[in-house]
Amino acid sequence: MFVDIESVPPIEIFPGVRIRTPYGKNLMLSYVESEDGAVVSFHHHPHEQGGVVLSGRLELTIGSETRTLRPGEMYIIPPDTPHRAAAAGGRTVVMDVFSPVREDYAARTEQAAKLSRDGASAEQRR
Amino acid sequence: MFVDIESVPPIEIFPGVRIRTPYGKNLMLSYVESEDGAVVSFHHHPHEQGGVVLSGRLELTIGSETRTLRPGEMYIIPPDTPHRAAAAGGRTVVMDVFSPVREDYAARTEQAAKLSRDGASAEQRR
Repeated sequence: MFVDIESVPPIEIFPGVRIRTPYGKNLMLSYVESEDGAVVSFHHHPHEQGGVVLSGRLELTIGSETRTLRPGEMYIIPPDTPHRAAAAGGRTVVMDVFSPVREDYAARTEQAAKLSRDGASAEQRR
Repeated sequence: MFVDIESVPPIEIFPGVRIRTPYGKNLMLSYVESEDGAVVSFHHHPHEQGGVVLSGRLELTIGSETRTLRPGEMYIIPPDTPHRAAAAGGRTVVMDVFSPVREDYAARTEQAAKLSRDGASAEQRR
């Protein structure tokens, strides 16, 4: 499928960090938009995570190593490995990818889509 | 891990199309550089594939639908679905992602890395 990213409802996972997460069977993409200075604090999950910076600067820590990545730079975070990310040079956009699919984000995306549809229906009934 | 893409040996999969494929446990990234007009002809595989355009223009066909994608535009190609791609506006760079890992590309990457190491050793022995 071709992803029309504007049609995927955003989820705010940390202050100033919005993700849109289209997904398939094995893969979930995550289009991450972060305001300057916004932080995804240390966390870990059993899902392997890869990614590439699309614009801005991403200060990324994987385990005990920190680097500041520019557009086109990539990473692979092994399962269960603590990591942290911060937008370090203006608004920063990243494409992350998870495998397996993160069921928590899938559920939140479906819920946000339903709310959006219900809102549109209520609007029509007026 | 942080990917130093220059340290990953390229594989030429079609004329004018070079990929570099760092990988983990569930995910393989594929940094694809295509010369203007280069084509990845119709093919399919059981691995699910996602991707995002980093620069240039990608004319992508998934099944029977064709669209020309710009930087930041994304796609998810279900397993076993025929697809084709062409660089349609100058040199085009894409980040693809596969899950599960493509063992054929992993083997070719390891082989290319070994050849590169052997070459470096032969150089040192001179």
